[in-house]
Amino acid sequence: MQTPVLFVTRRAHFNAAHKLFNPKYSKEHNEELFGKCANENWHGHNFDLYVTIKGRPSEDTGFVMDLKKLKVIIEDEVVVHLDHKNLNVDVPFLKDVLPSVENIVVAIWNRLAPRLPEHVKLHKIHLIETINNSVEYYGPDTPF
Amino acid sequence: MQTPVLFVTRRAHFNAAHKLFNPKYSKEHNEELFGKCANENWHGHNFDLYVTIKGRPSEDTGFVMDLKKLKVIIEDEVVVHLDHKNLNVDVPFLKDVLPSVENIVVAIWNRLAPRLPEHVKLHKIHLIETINNSVEYYGPDTPF
Amino acid sequence: MQTPVLFVTRRAHFNAAHKLFNPKYSKEHNEELFGKCANENWHGHNFDLYVTIKGRPSEDTGFVMDLKKLKVIIEDEVVVHLDHKNLNVDVPFLKDVLPSVENIVVAIWNRLAPRLPEHVKLHKIHLIETINNSVEYYGPDTPF
Amino acid sequence: MQTPVLFVTRRAHFNAAHKLFNPKYSKEHNEELFGKCANENWHGHNFDLYVTIKGRPSEDTGFVMDLKKLKVIIEDEVVVHLDHKNLNVDVPFLKDVLPSVENIVVAIWNRLAPRLPEHVKLHKIHLIETINNSVEYYGPDTPF
Amino acid sequence: MQTPVLFVTRRAHFNAAHKLFNPKYSKEHNEELFGKCANENWHGHNFDLYVTIKGRPSEDTGFVMDLKKLKVIIEDEVVVHLDHKNLNVDVPFLKDVLPSVENIVVAIWNRLAPRLPEHVKLHKIHLIETINNSVEYYGPDTPF
Amino acid sequence: MQTPVLFVTRRAHFNAAHKLFNPKYSKEHNEELFGKCANENWHGHNFDLYVTIKGRPSEDTGFVMDLKKLKVIIEDEVVVHLDHKNLNVDVPFLKDVLPSVENIVVAIWNRLAPRLPEHVKLHKIHLIETINNSVEYYGPDTPF
Repeated sequence: MQTPVLFVTRRAHFNAAHKLFNPKYSKEHNEELFGKCANENWHGHNFDLYVTIKGRPSEDTGFVMDLKKLKVIIEDEVVVHLDHKNLNVDVPFLKDVLPSVENIVVAIWNRLAPRLPEHVKLHKIHLIETINNSVEYYGPDTPF
Repeated sequence: MQTPVLFVTRRAHFNAAHKLFNPKYSKEHNEELFGKCANENWHGHNFDLYVTIKGRPSEDTGFVMDLKKLKVIIEDEVVVHLDHKNLNVDVPFLKDVLPSVENIVVAIWNRLAPRLPEHVKLHKIHLIETINNSVEYYGPDTPF
Repeated sequence: MQTPVLFVTRRAHFNAAHKLFNPKYSKEHNEELFGKCANENWHGHNFDLYVTIKGRPSEDTGFVMDLKKLKVIIEDEVVVHLDHKNLNVDVPFLKDVLPSVENIVVAIWNRLAPRLPEHVKLHKIHLIETINNSVEYYGPDTPF
Repeated sequence: MQTPVLFVTRRAHFNAAHKLFNPKYSKEHNEELFGKCANENWHGHNFDLYVTIKGRPSEDTGFVMDLKKLKVIIEDEVVVHLDHKNLNVDVPFLKDVLPSVENIVVAIWNRLAPRLPEHVKLHKIHLIETINNSVEYYGPDTPF
Repeated sequence: MQTPVLFVTRRAHFNAAHKLFNPKYSKEHNEELFGKCANENWHGHNFDLYVTIKGRPSEDTGFVMDLKKLKVIIEDEVVVHLDHKNLNVDVPFLKDVLPSVENIVVAIWNRLAPRLPEHVKLHKIHLIETINNSVEYYGPDTPF
Repeated sequence: MQTPVLFVTRRAHFNAAHKLFNPKYSKEHNEELFGKCANENWHGHNFDLYVTIKGRPSEDTGFVMDLKKLKVIIEDEVVVHLDHKNLNVDVPFLKDVLPSVENIVVAIWNRLAPRLPEHVKLHKIHLIETINNSVEYYGPDTPF
């Protein structure tokens, strides 16, 4: 008999600068679209990232996955690229992406999903920008 | 190709008084049902409200929805009616409703759902009454 | 040689209704003074109370004071009188007191100070009304 | 017409010691598997437990379930057995279970599910071990 | 008889970009001094600001100071200048100041102290940059 | 002119097991003194440690002290010795110390104070054992 399916969440953290600015449009139109988030000299946030995986615990370890290994994957694929960086300028995998929380979350999913071991699935990426705003993503097959 | 479906959450806050008291019953029976929450002179809480919508980010803005607009809708439809109010007495849309967290959450859903733009759906209302108690509602079609 | 002097803090919690309203004045003047806090039908809060005492740890127990006993004192002197109560109406020791956080804090100090054992001193009462507002009191001898 | 289906969450708390150590293996192999969590002299955590139930609010009370009763069930079935205990040694219902968060969560589900009244269903057990790690369980029928 | 002296704290919030970079030195030396905080393309934070004032509550209002007025002063003197700004570039009162948390805190004190009414004193500025780091300032007369 | 004196706080964290048990006394008397904290098989906590230093910011860096260096000192002197350890058994500097929060805090002060650079002073050690209990220590010269 198989062990049951569980959801395991690991937190990571990064501090970054960004601005919301679509280069297709004028400064004025960007201010209409994004308000003070369009400030051309940037602003920034402490981002809290929660990565949730899904799987069955091993009978040997009681773990769905060794969280020390998940921590290293998140660190290598996400945190070193985003922490103390400018999300519009410094991040190869966000090139040509408008760094809204929505778009960052999708990019993080795409970085992490192929790196997980086969016996687990990536279930959710949850990114908290401020106490007031956050975005969750459950992968490309989510129906509307 | 469409952008993926994401879940975006905005927090709001209100401080309110209420009591749990069913006028069909005696004071004694209300105390049996509701314990100290039945205190006839009211008590109150700091309520944290999390509103989650679902949709696809715009390619122009990276936003599922402009959260400044969502903030205004939550403010106009919910917060101005509940903040620094008595939930049993002061709120037209809670008239004849026993203001348990459960019933408040359903009333908030019913206020917000018709006000959202067509390209997003209301996904969840989460209302936190204390660090120990909260209620989530995913709309009238939720199966048991 | 004596053990060193330490500060020990215990948290308590109560949910209560109140309004800020000075009966010497008209409704209109109360609204000028207190804004939406003057709502005649009350509003309420989750109050977090932090009580800090000062003393030397016992060599027998390592404790400045047994916190189970401090918890009972706070419960008996403060929490049972304020939790799920109306601070303007239900509380004998707040009779004729305008229940601002400031005045509640002083009243709590006056309840607790005489109940502590002789080997400790009450150091601070800290009452948090919302994430945005709190008041601290260090006793009647605090200089301006 | 039935009232809608809602999800109600109650928090509980316990402080416990454990170690992650599989007695089938050597001390060295346990250290490979579990790192510092294998320390033979134990370590411990403050565990936050969130129990979510699902049901329709009563028209009489506005409650899906009286949370005072749910609190007592959680206290009797879980907290008294785990609080200030050693999860490897002191807990009959964790005997022969490697006390990873995953395995504790399943054991808590199995304790609580049969104790709930018929008109509600246990929906989720969420156990937070540290600010960085948590596990959620939605019951034995969860598909992978 | 005078009312007692109390300490009242109001929270504010701003999201900002900055870098730690002393223009007197080379890029290499800045990286030695500031590590990843020296990233020339900026990074950013959610800053939580706690402003504590000291005074005696009014007998008329129970308030040391009307917090709605304190909120407006903090908003006008600090938040509008720092929120969604670049602390190295956009802020006249931080011109030629290396925007470490230490230096920001002193600048905020200097903005707020002269704006408070005569019956209160500014007691403390506490600025939290991340969950791990914060700075407190009690004014220019603090002894070492 | 000297820069002003500021207080800088750095957070650290450790998860540990302990029991409160005075070997001079019987098991029964220990249970009277310490209640469930005397469980002979241990219990444990997530401890949050806040270390506050005092000093004047450097004109070169804006820092009272490089927090990366403070982090390393706290890590080397405290965290590696306490994290995932048994505070009664595994810690040389707590040998023969009853590991109450009070006594741990004093031991941490005594480890850190001699390791700080001369231009700063250790100001406070704040150790949070649970959301309900914490202890602060300002050094051996604190008057009662």
